[in-house]
Amino acid sequence: MKIKEPGLTEAEINARANEKAKKRKEVRDRMLATKTIEKGLLMVHTGKGKGKSTAAFGLVTRAIGNGFRVGIVQFVKGKWQTGERVVLEHFPDQVTIKAMGEGFTWDTQDRARDIAAAQAAWAEAKRMIEASRGETPQYDLLVFDELNIVLRYDYLDLAEVVETLKARPSQLHIVVTGRNAKPELIEAADLVTEMTEIKHPFQAGVKAQKGIEF
Amino acid sequence: MKIKEPGLTEAEINARANEKAKKRKEVRDRMLATKTIEKGLLMVHTGKGKGKSTAAFGLVTRAIGNGFRVGIVQFVKGKWQTGERVVLEHFPDQVTIKAMGEGFTWDTQDRARDIAAAQAAWAEAKRMIEASRGETPQYDLLVFDELNIVLRYDYLDLAEVVETLKARPSQLHIVVTGRNAKPELIEAADLVTEMTEIKHPFQAGVKAQKGIEF
Repeated sequence: MKIKEPGLTEAEINARANEKAKKRKEVRDRMLATKTIEKGLLMVHTGKGKGKSTAAFGLVTRAIGNGFRVGIVQFVKGKWQTGERVVLEHFPDQVTIKAMGEGFTWDTQDRARDIAAAQAAWAEAKRMIEASRGETPQYDLLVFDELNIVLRYDYLDLAEVVETLKARPSQLHIVVTGRNAKPELIEAADLVTEMTEIKHPFQAGVKAQKGIEF
Repeated sequence: MKIKEPGLTEAEINARANEKAKKRKEVRDRMLATKTIEKGLLMVHTGKGKGKSTAAFGLVTRAIGNGFRVGIVQFVKGKWQTGERVVLEHFPDQVTIKAMGEGFTWDTQDRARDIAAAQAAWAEAKRMIEASRGETPQYDLLVFDELNIVLRYDYLDLAEVVETLKARPSQLHIVVTGRNAKPELIEAADLVTEMTEIKHPFQAGVKAQKGIEF
Protein backbone atom coordinates (compact mmCIF):
# COMPACT_ATOMS: atom_id res chain seq x y z
CA MET A 1 0.00 0.00 0.00
CA LYS A 2 1.29 3.34 -1.06
CA ILE A 3 1.26 6.07 1.56
CA LYS A 4 2.90 9.27 0.51
CA GLU A 5 2.45 11.93 3.15
CA PRO A 6 5.34 14.21 3.94
CA GLY A 7 6.16 14.61 7.60
CA LEU A 8 5.27 11.06 8.62
CA THR A 9 7.96 8.90 10.17
CA GLU A 10 8.59 5.42 8.78
CA ALA A 11 6.99 4.00 11.94
CA GLU A 12 3.86 6.09 11.38
CA ILE A 13 3.68 5.06 7.71
CA ASN A 14 3.96 1.43 8.77
CA ALA A 15 1.28 1.78 11.45
CA ARG A 16 -1.18 3.31 8.97
CA ALA A 17 -0.39 0.67 6.34
CA ASN A 18 -0.89 -2.13 8.86
CA GLU A 19 -4.23 -0.71 9.96
CA LYS A 20 -5.34 -0.48 6.32
CA ALA A 21 -4.19 -4.06 5.68
CA LYS A 22 -6.19 -5.24 8.70
CA LYS A 23 -9.36 -3.65 7.32
CA ARG A 24 -8.74 -5.15 3.89
CA LYS A 25 -8.37 -8.56 5.47
CA GLU A 26 -11.69 -8.16 7.30
CA VAL A 27 -13.44 -7.20 4.05
CA ARG A 28 -11.79 -10.09 2.23
CA ASP A 29 -12.64 -12.62 4.96
CA ARG A 30 -16.28 -11.51 4.89
CA MET A 31 -16.30 -11.90 1.10
CA LEU A 32 -14.71 -15.38 1.26
CA ALA A 33 -17.20 -16.51 3.92
CA THR A 34 -20.02 -16.05 1.39
CA LYS A 35 -18.32 -18.44 -1.08
CA THR A 36 -19.41 -21.84 0.13
CA ILE A 37 -20.28 -23.83 -2.97
CA GLU A 38 -18.00 -26.66 -4.09
CA LYS A 39 -18.46 -27.96 -7.60
CA GLY A 40 -16.65 -29.09 -10.66
CA LEU A 41 -15.83 -25.98 -12.68
CA LEU A 42 -16.10 -25.44 -16.41
CA MET A 43 -13.16 -23.15 -17.17
CA VAL A 44 -12.38 -21.44 -20.48
CA HIS A 45 -9.05 -19.89 -21.51
CA THR A 46 -9.52 -17.79 -24.61
CA GLY A 47 -8.20 -14.65 -26.33
CA LYS A 48 -5.43 -13.98 -28.81
CA GLY A 49 -2.63 -13.71 -26.25
CA LYS A 50 -0.23 -16.41 -25.13
CA GLY A 51 -0.75 -18.57 -22.08
CA LYS A 52 -4.07 -20.29 -22.80
CA SER A 53 -2.70 -23.84 -23.10
CA THR A 54 0.27 -23.00 -20.89
CA ALA A 55 -2.02 -21.99 -18.01
CA ALA A 56 -4.03 -25.19 -18.56
CA PHE A 57 -0.84 -27.22 -18.23
CA GLY A 58 0.07 -25.22 -15.12
CA LEU A 59 -3.33 -26.18 -13.72
CA VAL A 60 -2.63 -29.82 -14.60
CA THR A 61 0.67 -29.62 -12.72
CA ARG A 62 -1.02 -28.19 -9.64
CA ALA A 63 -3.78 -30.81 -9.83
CA ILE A 64 -1.26 -33.66 -10.08
CA GLY A 65 0.52 -32.30 -7.01
CA ASN A 66 -2.80 -32.50 -5.19
CA GLY A 67 -3.30 -36.13 -6.17
CA PHE A 68 -5.86 -35.52 -8.92
CA ARG A 69 -6.22 -37.79 -11.93
CA VAL A 70 -6.11 -35.78 -15.13
CA GLY A 71 -7.21 -36.50 -18.69
CA ILE A 72 -6.03 -34.35 -21.60
CA VAL A 73 -7.40 -34.39 -25.14
CA GLN A 74 -5.48 -32.32 -27.67
CA PHE A 75 -7.85 -31.32 -30.46
CA VAL A 76 -5.00 -29.83 -32.48
CA LYS A 77 -1.80 -31.79 -32.37
CA GLY A 78 1.31 -29.69 -32.70
CA LYS A 79 4.94 -29.82 -31.88
CA TRP A 80 4.21 -27.44 -29.02
CA GLN A 81 3.74 -29.78 -26.10
CA THR A 82 6.87 -31.92 -26.23
CA GLY A 83 8.29 -30.19 -23.13
CA GLU A 84 5.19 -30.71 -21.04
CA ARG A 85 4.90 -34.33 -22.13
CA VAL A 86 8.34 -35.21 -20.76
CA VAL A 87 7.28 -33.91 -17.35
CA LEU A 88 3.78 -35.41 -17.36
CA GLU A 89 5.15 -38.83 -18.30
CA HIS A 90 6.69 -38.88 -14.81
CA PHE A 91 3.16 -39.35 -13.47
CA PRO A 92 1.72 -42.15 -15.63
CA ASP A 93 -0.78 -43.22 -12.96
CA GLN A 94 -2.28 -39.74 -12.78
CA VAL A 95 -2.21 -38.42 -16.34
CA THR A 96 -3.66 -39.64 -19.62
CA ILE A 97 -2.89 -37.64 -22.78
CA LYS A 98 -4.61 -38.22 -26.09
CA ALA A 99 -3.27 -36.18 -28.98
CA MET A 100 -6.08 -36.66 -31.47
CA GLY A 101 -5.82 -33.69 -33.81
CA GLU A 102 -3.76 -33.51 -36.94
CA GLY A 103 -2.09 -30.12 -36.61
CA PHE A 104 -3.40 -26.71 -37.47
CA THR A 105 -5.56 -26.50 -40.61
CA TRP A 106 -2.89 -24.49 -42.37
CA ASP A 107 -0.53 -27.43 -41.87
CA THR A 108 -2.84 -30.29 -42.81
CA GLN A 109 -4.64 -28.56 -45.71
CA ASP A 110 -7.10 -31.42 -45.58
CA ARG A 111 -10.51 -30.41 -44.28
CA ALA A 112 -12.06 -33.86 -44.45
CA ARG A 113 -9.24 -35.31 -42.34
CA ASP A 114 -9.47 -32.39 -39.88
CA ILE A 115 -13.18 -33.02 -39.36
CA ALA A 116 -12.65 -36.76 -38.84
CA ALA A 117 -9.87 -35.99 -36.34
CA ALA A 118 -12.03 -33.48 -34.45
CA GLN A 119 -14.85 -36.01 -34.21
CA ALA A 120 -12.52 -38.74 -32.96
CA ALA A 121 -11.11 -36.32 -30.36
CA TRP A 122 -14.62 -35.37 -29.22
CA ALA A 123 -15.56 -39.06 -28.92
CA GLU A 124 -12.53 -39.52 -26.66
CA ALA A 125 -13.49 -36.42 -24.63
CA LYS A 126 -17.02 -37.78 -24.13
CA ARG A 127 -15.58 -41.15 -23.10
CA MET A 128 -13.46 -39.42 -20.42
CA ILE A 129 -16.47 -37.47 -19.14
CA GLU A 130 -18.56 -40.64 -18.89
CA ALA A 131 -15.70 -42.50 -17.17
CA SER A 132 -15.77 -39.81 -14.47
CA ARG A 133 -19.30 -40.65 -13.31
CA GLY A 134 -20.45 -42.90 -10.52
CA GLU A 135 -18.78 -44.44 -7.49
CA THR A 136 -15.25 -44.65 -8.89
CA PRO A 137 -14.75 -41.67 -11.19
CA GLN A 138 -11.68 -42.07 -13.38
CA TYR A 139 -10.76 -38.38 -13.66
CA ASP A 140 -10.94 -35.27 -11.47
CA LEU A 141 -9.82 -32.78 -14.13
CA LEU A 142 -10.12 -32.88 -17.92
CA VAL A 143 -8.39 -30.53 -20.35
CA PHE A 144 -9.81 -30.17 -23.86
CA ASP A 145 -6.97 -28.29 -25.49
CA GLU A 146 -7.90 -26.17 -28.54
CA LEU A 147 -11.50 -27.40 -28.54
CA ASN A 148 -12.48 -23.78 -29.26
CA ILE A 149 -10.68 -23.90 -32.59
CA VAL A 150 -12.55 -26.90 -33.95
CA LEU A 151 -15.82 -25.42 -32.66
CA ARG A 152 -15.04 -22.20 -34.51
CA TYR A 153 -14.64 -24.13 -37.76
CA ASP A 154 -17.96 -25.92 -37.13
CA TYR A 155 -16.21 -29.30 -37.15
CA LEU A 156 -18.42 -30.34 -34.23
CA ASP A 157 -22.02 -29.65 -33.28
CA LEU A 158 -21.80 -26.72 -30.85
CA ALA A 159 -25.10 -27.39 -29.10
CA GLU A 160 -24.16 -31.01 -28.43
CA VAL A 161 -20.74 -30.04 -27.10
CA VAL A 162 -22.14 -27.38 -24.75
CA GLU A 163 -24.90 -29.68 -23.49
CA THR A 164 -22.39 -32.48 -22.84
CA LEU A 165 -20.06 -30.13 -20.94
CA LYS A 166 -22.97 -28.78 -18.87
CA ALA A 167 -24.11 -32.32 -18.07
CA ARG A 168 -20.66 -33.27 -16.69
CA PRO A 169 -20.47 -35.12 -13.36
CA SER A 170 -20.92 -32.60 -10.54
CA GLN A 171 -17.37 -32.87 -9.15
CA LEU A 172 -15.53 -32.99 -12.50
CA HIS A 173 -13.48 -29.92 -13.47
CA ILE A 174 -13.05 -29.23 -17.20
CA VAL A 175 -10.76 -26.71 -18.91
CA VAL A 176 -11.36 -25.72 -22.54
CA THR A 177 -8.71 -23.68 -24.37
CA GLY A 178 -8.38 -21.86 -27.66
CA ARG A 179 -9.04 -18.45 -29.12
CA ASN A 180 -12.50 -17.34 -30.26
CA ALA A 181 -14.50 -19.19 -27.61
CA LYS A 182 -18.14 -19.42 -28.67
CA PRO A 183 -20.59 -17.21 -26.70
CA GLU A 184 -22.68 -20.29 -25.87
CA LEU A 185 -19.63 -21.89 -24.20
CA ILE A 186 -18.79 -18.69 -22.28
CA GLU A 187 -22.40 -18.58 -21.10
CA ALA A 188 -22.12 -22.16 -19.77
CA ALA A 189 -18.73 -21.67 -18.09
CA ASP A 190 -17.99 -20.91 -14.43
CA LEU A 191 -14.67 -19.20 -15.10
CA VAL A 192 -13.54 -17.46 -18.25
CA THR A 193 -10.16 -15.79 -18.68
CA GLU A 194 -9.17 -13.90 -21.80
CA MET A 195 -5.47 -13.78 -22.55
CA THR A 196 -4.83 -10.47 -24.31
CA GLU A 197 -1.68 -9.83 -26.27
CA ILE A 198 -0.09 -6.56 -25.22
CA LYS A 199 3.32 -7.23 -26.76
CA HIS A 200 4.67 -10.21 -28.69
CA PRO A 201 8.33 -11.00 -29.52
CA PHE A 202 7.37 -11.57 -33.20
CA GLN A 203 6.86 -7.79 -33.32
CA ALA A 204 10.60 -7.39 -32.74
CA GLY A 205 11.61 -10.18 -35.15
CA VAL A 206 12.28 -12.73 -32.41
CA LYS A 207 11.54 -16.32 -33.43
CA ALA A 208 9.78 -19.06 -31.47
CA GLN A 209 12.37 -20.64 -29.20
CA LYS A 210 12.75 -24.12 -27.73
CA GLY A 211 11.93 -24.37 -24.04
CA ILE A 212 9.78 -21.26 -24.21
CA GLU A 213 7.38 -21.59 -27.14
CA PHE A 214 7.71 -25.36 -27.57
CA MET B 1 -12.58 -22.34 -41.98
CA LYS B 2 -16.25 -21.67 -42.33
CA ILE B 3 -17.69 -22.01 -45.83
CA LYS B 4 -21.42 -21.67 -46.08
CA GLU B 5 -22.48 -21.61 -49.68
CA PRO B 6 -25.61 -23.43 -50.64
CA GLY B 7 -25.32 -25.72 -53.61
CA LEU B 8 -21.74 -26.82 -52.97
CA THR B 9 -21.04 -30.49 -52.41
CA GLU B 10 -19.01 -31.58 -49.37
CA ALA B 11 -16.11 -32.36 -51.75
CA GLU B 12 -16.25 -28.85 -53.22
CA ILE B 13 -16.37 -27.28 -49.75
CA ASN B 14 -13.33 -29.34 -48.76
CA ALA B 15 -11.40 -28.40 -51.92
CA ARG B 16 -12.00 -24.69 -51.34
CA ALA B 17 -11.08 -24.96 -47.66
CA ASN B 18 -7.86 -26.82 -48.49
CA GLU B 19 -6.88 -24.20 -51.05
CA LYS B 20 -7.51 -21.44 -48.49
CA ALA B 21 -5.44 -23.33 -45.88
CA LYS B 22 -2.58 -23.65 -48.36
CA LYS B 23 -2.53 -19.89 -48.91
CA ARG B 24 -2.64 -19.23 -45.16
CA LYS B 25 0.32 -21.54 -44.70
CA GLU B 26 2.30 -19.66 -47.36
CA VAL B 27 1.55 -16.34 -45.64
CA ARG B 28 2.45 -17.80 -42.26
CA ASP B 29 5.68 -19.37 -43.51
CA ARG B 30 6.75 -16.06 -45.03
CA MET B 31 6.01 -14.31 -41.71
CA LEU B 32 7.94 -16.91 -39.69
CA ALA B 33 10.93 -16.66 -42.04
CA THR B 34 11.37 -13.00 -40.98
CA LYS B 35 11.66 -13.98 -37.30
CA THR B 36 15.27 -14.96 -36.93
CA ILE B 37 16.45 -13.45 -33.65
CA GLU B 38 17.15 -15.74 -30.69
CA LYS B 39 17.43 -14.10 -27.31
CA GLY B 40 16.49 -14.44 -23.70
CA LEU B 41 13.01 -12.99 -23.33
CA LEU B 42 11.66 -10.77 -20.60
CA MET B 43 8.05 -11.90 -20.26
CA VAL B 44 5.33 -10.28 -18.15
CA HIS B 45 2.01 -11.86 -17.12
CA THR B 46 -0.28 -9.20 -15.72
CA GLY B 47 -3.97 -8.26 -15.48
CA LYS B 48 -6.71 -9.03 -12.96
CA GLY B 49 -7.67 -12.39 -14.41
CA LYS B 50 -6.54 -15.82 -13.32
CA GLY B 51 -3.65 -17.69 -14.92
CA LYS B 52 -0.69 -15.33 -14.45
CA SER B 53 1.28 -17.55 -12.06
CA THR B 54 -0.35 -20.68 -13.45
CA ALA B 55 0.91 -19.92 -16.97
CA ALA B 56 4.37 -19.20 -15.52
CA PHE B 57 4.36 -22.64 -13.89
CA GLY B 58 3.18 -24.15 -17.16
CA LEU B 59 6.16 -22.49 -18.82
CA VAL B 60 8.42 -23.94 -16.11
CA THR B 61 7.02 -27.40 -16.81
CA ARG B 62 7.68 -27.04 -20.53
CA ALA B 63 11.19 -25.72 -19.88
CA ILE B 64 12.02 -28.61 -17.56
CA GLY B 65 10.87 -31.03 -20.25
CA ASN B 66 13.33 -29.36 -22.60
CA GLY B 67 16.22 -29.80 -20.16
CA PHE B 68 16.30 -26.20 -18.91
CA ARG B 69 17.42 -25.27 -15.43
CA VAL B 70 14.86 -23.05 -13.75
CA GLY B 71 15.00 -20.70 -10.77
CA ILE B 72 11.83 -19.44 -9.10
CA VAL B 73 11.59 -16.64 -6.55
CA GLN B 74 8.20 -16.18 -4.94
CA PHE B 75 7.88 -12.57 -3.79
CA VAL B 76 4.58 -13.30 -2.07
CA LYS B 77 4.42 -16.60 -0.28
CA GLY B 78 1.00 -18.13 -0.19
CA LYS B 79 -0.63 -21.47 0.24
CA TRP B 80 -1.27 -21.44 -3.51
CA GLN B 81 1.67 -23.32 -4.89
CA THR B 82 1.65 -26.51 -2.82
CA GLY B 83 0.42 -28.55 -5.79
CA GLU B 84 3.10 -27.27 -8.15
CA ARG B 85 5.81 -27.84 -5.55
CA VAL B 86 5.04 -31.55 -5.27
CA VAL B 87 5.56 -31.92 -9.02
CA LEU B 88 8.62 -29.67 -9.28
CA GLU B 89 10.32 -31.55 -6.43
CA HIS B 90 10.53 -34.51 -8.84
CA PHE B 91 13.19 -32.52 -10.71
CA PRO B 92 15.57 -31.34 -7.98
CA ASP B 93 18.53 -31.04 -10.37
CA GLN B 94 16.62 -28.68 -12.64
CA VAL B 95 14.52 -26.52 -10.34
CA THR B 96 15.33 -24.20 -7.45
CA ILE B 97 12.42 -22.54 -5.62
CA LYS B 98 12.86 -19.76 -3.10
CA ALA B 99 9.69 -18.67 -1.33
CA MET B 100 10.86 -15.41 0.17
CA GLY B 101 7.70 -13.38 0.70
CA GLU B 102 5.55 -13.46 3.77
CA GLY B 103 2.07 -13.71 2.34
CA PHE B 104 -0.19 -11.02 0.98
CA THR B 105 -0.10 -7.69 2.85
CA TRP B 106 -3.64 -8.22 4.07
CA ASP B 107 -2.44 -11.40 5.77
CA THR B 108 0.81 -10.14 7.29
CA GLN B 109 -0.44 -6.67 8.32
CA ASP B 110 3.21 -5.82 8.93
CA ARG B 111 4.60 -3.38 6.37
CA ALA B 112 8.14 -3.30 7.79
CA ARG B 113 8.35 -7.10 7.55
CA ASP B 114 6.87 -7.06 4.03
CA ILE B 115 9.53 -4.59 2.86
CA ALA B 116 12.34 -6.64 4.41
CA ALA B 117 10.95 -9.79 2.76
CA ALA B 118 10.68 -8.06 -0.64
CA GLN B 119 14.26 -6.87 -0.41
CA ALA B 120 15.54 -10.31 0.57
CA ALA B 121 13.62 -11.82 -2.36
CA TRP B 122 15.08 -9.26 -4.77
CA ALA B 123 18.60 -9.98 -3.47
CA GLU B 124 17.98 -13.67 -4.25
CA ALA B 125 16.62 -12.77 -7.71
CA LYS B 126 19.74 -10.72 -8.47
CA ARG B 127 21.93 -13.57 -7.25
CA MET B 128 20.19 -15.95 -9.69
CA ILE B 129 20.62 -13.49 -12.57
CA GLU B 130 24.34 -13.10 -11.82
CA ALA B 131 24.76 -16.89 -11.49
CA SER B 132 23.45 -17.17 -15.06
CA ARG B 133 26.33 -15.25 -16.62
CA GLY B 134 29.53 -16.52 -18.14
CA GLU B 135 30.71 -19.87 -19.43
CA THR B 136 28.59 -22.06 -17.16
CA PRO B 137 25.30 -20.26 -16.57
CA GLN B 138 23.35 -21.76 -13.69
CA TYR B 139 19.84 -21.02 -15.02
CA ASP B 140 18.09 -20.83 -18.38
CA LEU B 141 14.75 -19.50 -17.10
CA LEU B 142 13.92 -17.46 -14.01
CA VAL B 143 10.42 -16.79 -12.67
CA PHE B 144 9.91 -13.82 -10.35
CA ASP B 145 6.43 -14.60 -9.12
CA GLU B 146 4.36 -11.60 -7.91
CA LEU B 147 7.28 -9.19 -8.34
CA ASN B 148 4.73 -6.76 -9.80
CA ILE B 149 2.89 -6.60 -6.48
CA VAL B 150 5.90 -5.53 -4.42
CA LEU B 151 6.84 -3.03 -7.15
CA ARG B 152 3.36 -1.57 -6.98
CA TYR B 153 3.72 -1.00 -3.23
CA ASP B 154 7.10 0.68 -3.80
CA TYR B 155 8.85 -1.91 -1.64
CA LEU B 156 11.71 -1.96 -4.18
CA ASP B 157 13.35 0.68 -6.32
CA LEU B 158 11.59 0.37 -9.70
CA ALA B 159 14.42 1.89 -11.76
CA GLU B 160 16.98 -0.50 -10.27
CA VAL B 161 14.74 -3.52 -10.86
CA VAL B 162 14.05 -2.59 -14.50
CA GLU B 163 17.73 -1.84 -15.19
CA THR B 164 18.78 -5.16 -13.65
CA LEU B 165 16.22 -7.09 -15.71
CA LYS B 166 17.29 -5.31 -18.91
CA ALA B 167 20.95 -6.08 -18.16
CA ARG B 168 20.23 -9.82 -17.84
CA PRO B 169 22.56 -12.28 -19.62
CA SER B 170 21.60 -12.40 -23.29
CA GLN B 171 20.30 -15.99 -23.30
CA LEU B 172 18.45 -15.85 -19.96
CA HIS B 173 14.64 -15.90 -20.07
CA ILE B 174 12.80 -14.17 -17.23
CA VAL B 175 9.08 -14.23 -16.40
CA VAL B 176 7.58 -11.63 -14.07
CA THR B 177 4.02 -12.11 -12.80
CA GLY B 178 1.46 -10.09 -10.89
CA ARG B 179 -1.32 -7.64 -11.57
CA ASN B 180 -0.66 -3.92 -12.14
CA ALA B 181 2.65 -4.29 -13.98
CA LYS B 182 4.49 -0.96 -14.03
CA PRO B 183 4.59 0.81 -17.44
CA GLU B 184 8.41 0.94 -17.22
CA LEU B 185 8.52 -2.86 -16.93
CA ILE B 186 6.07 -3.32 -19.83
CA GLU B 187 8.27 -1.00 -21.89
CA ALA B 188 11.34 -3.13 -21.17
CA ALA B 189 9.59 -6.48 -21.82
CA ASP B 190 9.65 -8.60 -24.99
CA LEU B 191 6.31 -10.29 -24.33
CA VAL B 192 3.41 -9.00 -22.27
CA THR B 193 0.15 -10.87 -21.77
CA GLU B 194 -2.76 -9.45 -19.86
CA MET B 195 -5.06 -11.97 -18.23
CA THR B 196 -8.52 -10.43 -18.23
CA GLU B 197 -11.29 -11.74 -16.01
CA ILE B 198 -14.44 -12.35 -18.03
CA LYS B 199 -16.19 -14.53 -15.46
CA HIS B 200 -15.09 -15.74 -12.01
CA PRO B 201 -16.67 -18.51 -9.90
CA PHE B 202 -16.76 -16.16 -6.88
CA GLN B 203 -19.52 -14.33 -8.76
CA ALA B 204 -21.66 -17.44 -8.37
CA GLY B 205 -20.70 -18.06 -4.72
CA VAL B 206 -18.25 -20.86 -5.52
CA LYS B 207 -15.30 -21.08 -3.14
CA ALA B 208 -11.60 -21.63 -3.91
CA GLN B 209 -11.09 -25.37 -4.27
CA LYS B 210 -8.13 -27.66 -3.66
CA GLY B 211 -6.43 -28.88 -6.83
CA ILE B 212 -7.81 -25.96 -8.82
CA GLU B 213 -7.08 -22.75 -6.94
CA PHE B 214 -4.39 -24.17 -4.63
